Amino acid sequence: MVPSPIALTDLDAMPEADFVAALGAVYEHAPWVAAGAAALRPFGTVEALADAMRAVIEAASDEARLALLVGHPELAGRAARAGRIAQASVEEQAAAGLDRLSEAEYARFEAMNAAYRERFGIPFIICVKRHGRASLLRRFEARLASDPEAERRTALTEVFRIGAIRLSGLVEGAGRLRTTGRLSTHVLDTVRGRPAAGIGVALHEIVSDTESVLVARAVTNADGRTDAPLIGGRPVPIGTYELRFALGAYHRAAGHDLPDPPFLDIVPLRFGVSDPEGHYHVPLVATPWSFQTYRGS
Amino acid sequence: MVPSPIALTDLDAMPEADFVAALGAVYEHAPWVAAGAAALRPFGTVEALADAMRAVIEAASDEARLALLVGHPELAGRAARAGRIAQASVEEQAAAGLDRLSEAEYARFEAMNAAYRERFGIPFIICVKRHGRASLLRRFEARLASDPEAERRTALTEVFRIGAIRLSGLVEGAGRLRTTGRLSTHVLDTVRGRPAAGIGVALHEIVSDTESVLVARAVTNADGRTDAPLIGGRPVPIGTYELRFALGAYHRAAGHDLPDPPFLDIVPLRFGVSDPEGHYHVPLVATPWSFQTYRGS
Amino acid sequence: MVPSPIALTDLDAMPEADFVAALGAVYEHAPWVAAGAAALRPFGTVEALADAMRAVIEAASDEARLALLVGHPELAGRAARAGRIAQASVEEQAAAGLDRLSEAEYARFEAMNAAYRERFGIPFIICVKRHGRASLLRRFEARLASDPEAERRTALTEVFRIGAIRLSGLVEGAGRLRTTGRLSTHVLDTVRGRPAAGIGVALHEIVSDTESVLVARAVTNADGRTDAPLIGGRPVPIGTYELRFALGAYHRAAGHDLPDPPFLDIVPLRFGVSDPEGHYHVPLVATPWSFQTYRGS
Amino acid sequence: MVPSPIALTDLDAMPEADFVAALGAVYEHAPWVAAGAAALRPFGTVEALADAMRAVIEAASDEARLALLVGHPELAGRAARAGRIAQASVEEQAAAGLDRLSEAEYARFEAMNAAYRERFGIPFIICVKRHGRASLLRRFEARLASDPEAERRTALTEVFRIGAIRLSGLVEGAGRLRTTGRLSTHVLDTVRGRPAAGIGVALHEIVSDTESVLVARAVTNADGRTDAPLIGGRPVPIGTYELRFALGAYHRAAGHDLPDPPFLDIVPLRFGVSDPEGHYHVPLVATPWSFQTYRGS
Repeated sequence: MVPSPIALTDLDAMPEADFVAALGAVYEHAPWVAAGAAALRPFGTVEALADAMRAVIEAASDEARLALLVGHPELAGRAARAGRIAQASVEEQAAAGLDRLSEAEYARFEAMNAAYRERFGIPFIICVKRHGRASLLRRFEARLASDPEAERRTALTEVFRIGAIRLSGLVEGAGRLRTTGRLSTHVLDTVRGRPAAGIGVALHEIVSDTESVLVARAVTNADGRTDAPLIGGRPVPIGTYELRFALGAYHRAAGHDLPDPPFLDIVPLRFGVSDPEGHYHVPLVATPWSFQTYRGS
Repeated sequence: MVPSPIALTDLDAMPEADFVAALGAVYEHAPWVAAGAAALRPFGTVEALADAMRAVIEAASDEARLALLVGHPELAGRAARAGRIAQASVEEQAAAGLDRLSEAEYARFEAMNAAYRERFGIPFIICVKRHGRASLLRRFEARLASDPEAERRTALTEVFRIGAIRLSGLVEGAGRLRTTGRLSTHVLDTVRGRPAAGIGVALHEIVSDTESVLVARAVTNADGRTDAPLIGGRPVPIGTYELRFALGAYHRAAGHDLPDPPFLDIVPLRFGVSDPEGHYHVPLVATPWSFQTYRGS
Repeated sequence: MVPSPIALTDLDAMPEADFVAALGAVYEHAPWVAAGAAALRPFGTVEALADAMRAVIEAASDEARLALLVGHPELAGRAARAGRIAQASVEEQAAAGLDRLSEAEYARFEAMNAAYRERFGIPFIICVKRHGRASLLRRFEARLASDPEAERRTALTEVFRIGAIRLSGLVEGAGRLRTTGRLSTHVLDTVRGRPAAGIGVALHEIVSDTESVLVARAVTNADGRTDAPLIGGRPVPIGTYELRFALGAYHRAAGHDLPDPPFLDIVPLRFGVSDPEGHYHVPLVATPWSFQTYRGS
Repeated sequence: MVPSPIALTDLDAMPEADFVAALGAVYEHAPWVAAGAAALRPFGTVEALADAMRAVIEAASDEARLALLVGHPELAGRAARAGRIAQASVEEQAAAGLDRLSEAEYARFEAMNAAYRERFGIPFIICVKRHGRASLLRRFEARLASDPEAERRTALTEVFRIGAIRLSGLVEGAGRLRTTGRLSTHVLDTVRGRPAAGIGVALHEIVSDTESVLVARAVTNADGRTDAPLIGGRPVPIGTYELRFALGAYHRAAGHDLPDPPFLDIVPLRFGVSDPEGHYHVPLVATPWSFQTYRGS
């Protein structure tokens, strides 16, 4: 159901009304941003288009900018639960797990949403695709303690990030925006001096001491890699992760005589992601009795 | 409250009644084993004493051996809960966490105990000090499927293991029994080329996918080691463990400029123990961006 | 001066005389091989062409095959020194350093050449591009002890290898022959968690305990790799190599406060190559106080 | 022929003449230093004795101190070649290889000795036991460029270092001087998860690009270590070293099916020593396809 992207060259050439129809939803409830940018065509690169839309917002009146912020839905808020928010927002919040919170968690969000709106006069806005659940909560708490002016600036920055990701999904062309990261792995068998094929790998997001969420599963191929990155084509949400490798099963299948339980069976590699648009390559170099990892490239 | 050990040379020289009083509890409800061994003095080494006690049991009648097995308490059984078992057994079962089971777990043990006694005519006997909780359950299930003759032999082997550990705690002298293992670590900082001091280390037993139990805590000293082994002077229970190192806090304190969250913060090293009397040295060699471990020596 | 390769499709279509002119030198002094293969066109893949030429040789008379072997020049022999051998052979021997031997080495080759010819009635033939100098000598000595029938077979296998490499250089098309290997490296800085750029790398062939020959020099780029493989587009000669990394200079430039001399300055990684058509990726993962390597992929 | 050390308690108690006889050679041709220290007895610790002897020198007249410096032999000088220097100096210079220089090297030392004496009015003094041959030459060159006052201070510091090492060899007692370092290794086999026994290890000092000197040879024991440190009980001379491990032979003996040549055969670990009184532990953690080292503890 993902619509196919529009070519930037087409956007540069189409009637203004079509342009606004195509990009009106990039900024939530604010088609005037696309309308303002339409006059500045042609852009040539997606980056130039994104810059132009940001410039329209920066050049707008304080009232218009405030309305833009106010138009955003709360995180896990009543509007979201009642289905009264933009479709893009629905999907973004669902991807962050915000549609599956417990009643206690909803209540906590409600309380923070209320406190935030009371203090700053706008809803709490954050680019949810760039954060794991624990990171969302930490930022929410940190920003509740911010001062109003800085906080509006922060909110606007997040609005720009949301817009950039939406724009990247809608438009195809030269000068792509930096809105995606990558999380990949590969496994090397240093007993046999070659890539380890057929190893089951699971990627978990560590939400708290007691809760982790399965993000992806894969099996290594003949090159010791997964056929696709474990996370790719989108930001890698800020958070703590564990890659878990079924190393014991691999070594048993390779004919190693392992003790019971083996010294290394399921091997977890725990690491943090702080740069959602970065490339996190986290390899496993292993024998039945040793392993290591490093941030690779 | 641990009584100080008796010198083997004293045991070799004391009146028979004192000898039996000293060692009568090595085999549960079976002072006749000590009595039989008394006549074989002097021993010279603890190993020879242990061999002699085992030989007394092997040479006894089938009835006497069966009674010895029958005299053992069930694991987490009614007698244990009611306090009607030998003091040594109480402590051994408590160390394995069997005095802190949930009602569901008790019920499971009750059912397995009943099935085992029904099938083999003896209580399920295992040297609990050599097993973590998950290992206990796995062995219990595996042995329920064994055949009666092999199972009596297995039970007797476990009785010997229990006796060896009790004897080691009671007697001091040459030729010590191999009844203890060791679990140790050290941390090396390869950014600075020296041991990493002041790193918090926690050892957890991984009971299941969702449950882990804290076994020990320590902080590394100037040599990057813990002042005492994390487990020492006793068997290392068979099971799966995680050492968790507070590496992020160490690197922050050392002045490294880390991202938030850091790539490496709490570093878990997960490994299995299959040889309770072995030495498991599990070092961490680390930088803010890489780490490794191996079974060391 | 390397002639540009001919397209296989052109070879498949051209007059027979042109085909023989184009491929007549693939087998030394034996244009009859190309002539025989010409009748079997079209081939479709380079592999099929190579197979056909080998089949022509296998189907020829014993006399013709012997003449083919006898037509090869000796290694570092008089004919080579006097320039009376095929141009392709001149270049192959020069690449192996056989045109720069000391008088003592020439004398040794002369003696082995004479002994070999005396024993087997053919010159010693080996695909020199697949061997470093030490490996050439070891094989020469080993093959002197072989029996005549096996040795003729071995000589023919080497002739096929030489032919395959020559053919690969002459013809372009689908189904390429496996005649090239690769030797590459990359350097990872695990203090900073990123590729190490600007590190000088030298590749040496270790000829003996006292002699090594510089094969290639490079500097790592922003990705920690060299812009081109250290060896590529040709077989990696069988032998022992050392990669030498100027790690100390890199760490000093990065602002590390190193002792004098540094713990790690020039870091040699010594490794052997046994599969000339394989990919040898030999990375360096390093800090100022630690390093490692493995056969990567 | 090494005389057994004298107990400090005896030195504290013996007649002054005996004390001076015992320690008169600690400072070259300067028994007045021992005589001066005799009056300050008892010392209690070797450190206090060493401090007292240094204090005697510091408190002496400029003329006496200059005479002390002038009394030292040149490095590899005519007096040394003619045997006209103190026995301790003979041995110290021989240990540094200065009795086995080529004529060209002697000539170079002669020239530097002459230039140094011309410039500073004293012989070039350095504690040779703390330097490898390359380090000696580098320091000699660096100090030739120093200014006279700083250089006399440096010369005196070296005299104190020479005295401390001589004193350590002569006297036994509490409060030992820090005059010895250690160079050790151990090898871990991470295919089998245990120490690698029976591995041949050679320690070479790298004198220049083309010259290395064998310092020690050993074979690893069951614990993967050498029975004694490769260097111990003396300073580890400042310089560059290579540990060379016969890893290929070990893996072949262990039944691994290795290619010919193996990927890892002789594994050199090259490292620098800058702190002669430090402990350099340089382990090898290896499989047939990977290895690593770090400065251990």
